[in-house]
Order: sequence, then structure tokens, then C-alpha cells
Amino acid sequence: MALTRIGLAGLAVMGQNLALNIAEKGFPISVYNRTTSKVDETVQRAKLEGNLPLYGFHDPASFVNSIQKPRVVIMLVKAGAPVDQTIATLAAHLEQGDCIVDGGNEWYENTERREKAMEERGLLYLGMGVSGGEEGARHGPSMMPGGSLEAYQYIEDILLKVSAQVPDSGPCVTYIGKGGSGNFVKMVHNGIEYGDMQLIAEAYDVLKSVGKLTNGELQQVFAEWNKGELLSFLVEITADIFSIKDDQGEGYLVDKVLDKVAAPTIEASLDSRFLSGLKDERVAASKIFQGDYSSGETVDKAQLIEDVRKALYASKICSYAQGMNIIKAKSVEKGWGLNLGELARIWKGGCIIRASFLDRIKKAYDRNGELANLLIDPEFAQEIMDRQAAWRRVVCLAINNGVSTPGMSASLAYFDSYRRERLPANLVQAQRDYFGAHTYERVDMPGSFHTEWYKIANSKI
Amino acid sequence: MALTRIGLAGLAVMGQNLALNIAEKGFPISVYNRTTSKVDETVQRAKLEGNLPLYGFHDPASFVNSIQKPRVVIMLVKAGAPVDQTIATLAAHLEQGDCIVDGGNEWYENTERREKAMEERGLLYLGMGVSGGEEGARHGPSMMPGGSLEAYQYIEDILLKVSAQVPDSGPCVTYIGKGGSGNFVKMVHNGIEYGDMQLIAEAYDVLKSVGKLTNGELQQVFAEWNKGELLSFLVEITADIFSIKDDQGEGYLVDKVLDKVAAPTIEASLDSRFLSGLKDERVAASKIFQGDYSSGETVDKAQLIEDVRKALYASKICSYAQGMNIIKAKSVEKGWGLNLGELARIWKGGCIIRASFLDRIKKAYDRNGELANLLIDPEFAQEIMDRQAAWRRVVCLAINNGVSTPGMSASLAYFDSYRRERLPANLVQAQRDYFGAHTYERVDMPGSFHTEWYKIANSKI
Repeated sequence: MALTRIGLAGLAVMGQNLALNIAEKGFPISVYNRTTSKVDETVQRAKLEGNLPLYGFHDPASFVNSIQKPRVVIMLVKAGAPVDQTIATLAAHLEQGDCIVDGGNEWYENTERREKAMEERGLLYLGMGVSGGEEGARHGPSMMPGGSLEAYQYIEDILLKVSAQVPDSGPCVTYIGKGGSGNFVKMVHNGIEYGDMQLIAEAYDVLKSVGKLTNGELQQVFAEWNKGELLSFLVEITADIFSIKDDQGEGYLVDKVLDKVAAPTIEASLDSRFLSGLKDERVAASKIFQGDYSSGETVDKAQLIEDVRKALYASKICSYAQGMNIIKAKSVEKGWGLNLGELARIWKGGCIIRASFLDRIKKAYDRNGELANLLIDPEFAQEIMDRQAAWRRVVCLAINNGVSTPGMSASLAYFDSYRRERLPANLVQAQRDYFGAHTYERVDMPGSFHTEWYKIANSKI
Repeated sequence: MALTRIGLAGLAVMGQNLALNIAEKGFPISVYNRTTSKVDETVQRAKLEGNLPLYGFHDPASFVNSIQKPRVVIMLVKAGAPVDQTIATLAAHLEQGDCIVDGGNEWYENTERREKAMEERGLLYLGMGVSGGEEGARHGPSMMPGGSLEAYQYIEDILLKVSAQVPDSGPCVTYIGKGGSGNFVKMVHNGIEYGDMQLIAEAYDVLKSVGKLTNGELQQVFAEWNKGELLSFLVEITADIFSIKDDQGEGYLVDKVLDKVAAPTIEASLDSRFLSGLKDERVAASKIFQGDYSSGETVDKAQLIEDVRKALYASKICSYAQGMNIIKAKSVEKGWGLNLGELARIWKGGCIIRASFLDRIKKAYDRNGELANLLIDPEFAQEIMDRQAAWRRVVCLAINNGVSTPGMSASLAYFDSYRRERLPANLVQAQRDYFGAHTYERVDMPGSFHTEWYKIANSKI
């Protein structure tokens, strides 16, 4: 048998699809998976999808030996320990000058550690972010390879053909840079993606909750928006989503999608301390965005002071509620059984946050050790209710005067999110199911659901 | 020589102060530091501060052997590798049943890893958060010990005396829980502390920028607030700060403090996806915070749709600007030399964020490869200027109707922070210098400054 051009190890659906994509573009490929049934499944798909030049192997030695030198193997396995395991398996058979490419979502520092370890053994290493989900992997993803430039050059011809092709701007791949830069860029890309979905969900919420737009009107609005500066895949699919009727009952499907995100995640965000560090940039920006930021509203000083005091206090309750609940969540996860009231007690002295307020928190947990959130303790709840009008006035006044209150705004958003029975997360769930078949739950029946949003929306029109 | 009760290794100022505190409470203590001059310095201080029972050692073996069994050694060294190093040094001389306490700000998972490793050698381990800075360490900190309960019980009598004492609520220490819980709780405590400082800075900003309050008025307002529900150390020192005149020129010192935070940090924050996961809790909260959240403003539907479109677009620019700048910052730090325009280009296809907008970003970086921020590209800057009135209307409308728009609000706050020459971070710097002698920079002259805020403020009154 002739040697193949490249190898791919790890045949879950992303790996299968990328291997088929590579084979389809004319590059003979060897594939391997520890669970060998996945190998046979992929070989079968290669036959069915057009007799593609894809060759399956059940053991790592014959897999590696089937690839032409210098050998390149792309791994598509779960980040973390499975990557180390796969590297160990492959490296036992690879030779000086061969190359391993990690196509998963790895933490960039792990990639840098592995690149160094591989270098000591004479092997080259790439950490390559691959975006676009299963569909992208099969028909053209956006690819972010970082690490060894030499390794990139071995496979550049493959990546240029396999990646998404955009008229006027070329293939969606470039050599990102050294080290873990490919993984890092992919991670930020994902952050931007979540941000887009969140912003669209908020736009939907305001139009629906305040503007009382129907789903039909929302469909039209997003379709219209997609013709202008907001033209994008996510705005396009959002319009589609609003067009789909529920086939299990009355009304529209989006209203039946449960507004609960399946995988709560903690994400890193840049905070005010970071922005305040950019003194020179801010000075430059202030010149560009000059202008009158005074709203012209007349301000009653005494009223303002009283309002700000209330806003500060209400924001503080939200901040402590969040802190306590981060601790509670970790305590449950790890089985620590922490006593939240005791924590409030030992912070009453010695430390910077010492305050009479902590005594109130201790008492709230004394009243109810299982309190889900400080906000719903009867005393704190009443205090927030009494202060919320002032709180809203302060944040709006600041906004209208061009003053940023990121902390107070975030606290108010926390309160308004926490106290609402229904959030626009149903749209986010629908979007994720649309582009990634991530499934969704329904408000009216148990189970996991998946809808062919694209097909239904586009067969109708 | 009689054996001492406990040992402490790592004699930077926190370690010195905690050792002196322990000795002062009547517990004979052995101290050790790799750089031996620190040992002599601490012994000298113990003499000067009242002939305290503190004994210095220049080598780890005699240090460890000077402590009664089971031996307990508190480490106060930098988190990470220095902790592993110190453990290795100490463990070589410790015996079965002895105990190591890490009093630094360690990542809780590292503590859990070390606790397991120590357990295999028959040693006990505690990860203990210590809050209150140098002052707290010397005269009474808040202490958060987690890990081996047995180890905690060996030193409970010491911790109860050494920690801050609060009337009616007792010593500021308790056994937190198993594993890394002490470090985790300390980390969240620090997050709450930053949150408090941020909220107070925002209150100051609104009162000063919108309400035009003078420093004298601000001093009075915060002093007044400190009598009520906001009574706390941070509000108290804030009042003090506004009372202090600049001794190097005209006016008040706080206005001369540079609004640039010395150590930009990236912090983890819970995002909307997390909140949206708490469906059941939200439903319960919605019952408690019932009421009319409609502002009663009449809403012109067509105007609203147009406003929301503009708000969405402007927010999106800010979101991408942040993402690009996270990448740029890491690229500079690591020397990756990434090409931001190329990144925008390869995201144009294949992935979920594909959008015509990315072409605009690419062009902005083509125009200026060194662009400090997308916001100040002339085209994007103009677009934001054209949309900001609508953007502010939408966020305020949402706030007044109890609808949360955390993403749009955060984007607007990012814009308003970025475009302002002066942020209230000067107050945060003054607070940090007040309670931790962290020093500050001035707007009008180079150098690092420290002021005895407490002494000056309280000698005047």
C-alpha cells in the first residue's frame, strides 16, 4: 500500500468529519481511534460519502507507519489528560522531524508545555483551534494553527484546501504565531461568540418585553437587520428561529424552549481595574470622543446623595450575594459543607471588608442555613425593594451623563436577571441547537429536543 | 533550650508580623528564612517590640528540631513554586504527624494537590487564607484555615488568640472545611473586596461628576453614610481620604492621585449563562420581587426597533474591541507578534461569528496595524458617536422596565470608561495606600508616593 499524506487520531464526530473533509480534498489520510469501532465507522462513512481516500487502522504502530515522512498526525481528543495520553501513544512510534497537531480546545499553556517536551524528543508540535462545529469540520472550518512554523508549512497546502473558502478574502486559515497562540486566539474567539449571542438575546428581550413585538415582527426585524451592518450568521439564524411554529402545540417553538443554559460556565472577563490601567489610551480616546456628555437634567443634590447611598447599598447586597453563592456552589461541588454564616462572622474584623453589614448576612444565614440567595432573605429583599427606584435612577443618570458605573449596572442586571422568571436564554438555546445540534429543553414537557431549524425555516419561505 | 510551640518560615513583612503577633500572644515561636538576614531582622524586632519569645534559626534542620512535637510550621512565601520549594526543605526534617500550614494566597487546587502528597508522607496540611494585610497580620487578621481538621485542632488555641477579636461575635477565625476550602473562600473574599472598592468609586464618580460635590462635601457624605447601613472600614477610610489636603501644592490630595491601577488583573466573573442556569431559583425570586416593572413610558415601536439595532451594533463593536485587545495584550506579553487583521479575515467563514462586520475590522487593522483599540479607528469611532444616543436610550429604557441587559450595559460602561480621560480609580489607589501602604502615583509629578492618610485625617479632626 502507498503511504498516506497525513494521519488523524481521535474519531468522535469532529475528528470523523475533519478526516472526511481532508480525504475529500484529495489528500489520502490514515485514521486511528483507541475504540476501534469508531475506525470502522469512519471507513464506512468514507465509502458512502464518495469512496474517499481514507484508511483505517486498529493499532497505533501500523497507523503511524502508514503515513509518509515527515509524518503529521492531527489529534482530535478531549483537552487535558486524553491529549497527553494520545501523545504518549503516538510518540512511541514517531521519528525525529515528525509532527503532532492538537486540533482540540486546549488551554494554551498546556500546548506550550507539550511543544517544549516534544522539541526535546525532536518532534514538532502545533496547537490548532478549529471553529465551526461538526458542520464546519466536514465542509470548511475556520482554523487557527499556532506553534512550530515548520510543522505548519508541512501541511499548509492541506489546510488551505480544507478550511472554509470566502470569496475575496481567501481560505479561513493562517499561521497564527508561535507557542500556544492558536489555542489562545480560539479561546477569545469563543468569548466573542458568547458575547454576540448574549447581545442578540438582550436585543430580543427589549423588543419583546418592552416593545411587545410578536414573533412574526421579530422575524421581520432580524431579517431586515441582516441586510445591513449587522449582516451575520447569528442574526440570520435568529430571524429563522422566529419563523418556526411549534409542531407539538400552539404558537412558536422559541417560546417553548426552556431559558436554562445547559452548561453554566464561569468565564474570564476584563474588569474595570484593567481598563483603568490604560491611562494613556484613555487620554487619547477622550480626545476622539469629545463632546457634551451632560444630559441637561437638573440634579437635586440632596436627592442625588440619598439616591446614590441607596444604589450603593443595593449594589453591595448583590455583590455579597454573588460572592456567597460562588462559595456555596464550590462547597456543594467539592462536598466541603461550608457554613456561610460563619464566614460572614470571621470577616467582621481584621480584614478590609469588615462592616456592620456582615452581621446582617450572618443573621440571614442563621435564620435559614439553606438560603438559596441573600437577595431572597426577607430582610434583604425588603431593603432592595425599598431602594430599587433610587438605584435605577442613579444608573440611568450616570448613563445619560456618560459616566460609567460598571459595578452598579452589573449588580442591577444581576438583580433583574435573578428576579425574572423568564430570561431570553431560550433564544440562545435555540441558536445553539440551530448551529450545533446542542439540543434544548422545553418549558412544557420533560426531555431533550432537537429541531432542524434551518430546514424548516428555509423550506417555508 | 526549651522547645517552642510553633514555627514560621518565610519572613517577608507579612511573615514577620504574623510571627510577632503569635509571640506577643504568649506562644514561643521559631522562625526561619532562606535569606538569613531576614531572620536576624525579625529577632531584632521581637526584642524591640517587647522582648517577645521569638527564636531565629539559620538552617532548616535546627529550625524544625526546635519545635515541640507534633510540629506545626506556618509558611508565608509566594504562591506557586516557592511553596513547593519550602515544603521540600521542611519535609526533609519533619516527622510523621507533623503539620505544614500555607498562609499565602494559593490557588485552592494546588493546596489540594499538596495535601494529598503530604498525606502520603504522613504529614498533615492546611491551606489558610490570611486577610488584613501587614497591619492585620501584626495585630489581628481574619483567618481562613482549610484542610486537615486534626492540624487545625493542634493550633486552634493559637489562632483564636492571634486573630482579630470582635465584641459579641468572637475571634475572626473558624475551621472553614476540608481540602482547599480555606484558599477558595479567601479568593472570593478578595473578589468581594474589589467589588466594594469599585462600587464606592462609582458612587464617588456620580456624586462628583454629575452632582458636582466638592471634596469637603464628599467627606461629609461618606462620614454620614458610615453612621448607617453602610458602616464599614472602606466607607470610613473613604471619608478620611477626602479630608486630606495636598502637602505638595494646592487642593486635595485625592485629586492628585493618578487614576491608574498598578497591577491590572483579569478576574473571573459569573456571567449571564450562569444565572440563566438557575431557573428554579429565579422562579422563586420572581414571586418575591413581584410588582409592576413597566416604566409607563410610551414606546414608539419603530423608534424602539431602530434604537435597539443601533445599541446592538455599538455593543458589538465594544465586544470585538475587547476580544481583539485581549489577544493583543497576550501577544505582546508572549512576543507572538500576532496579526489582528488576519484573525478577522480567517473568522469570516466556517465559524459561528462569521459576519460582514469582520471585513470592516480587517480593514481597520489594514489602515493601522498598531491600532490601540478598534473604538478609535476613525470609521468605528464615527459609527459609535452616531449611535450612542440610541444606545443610552435602550439601556435606560431596559433598566426602567426591570429588563436586564448585562451585555449592552457592560459594553456601554466599557465605552464610557475607555473614552474618559479621568476615572475614579484615583480613589481606589488612595484606599489601597491607606490600608495597605501600596503607594500611588501622582498626576502632576513622577515617582511613587505614600501618605499616612489615617494619621493626618485623625490628627486634624
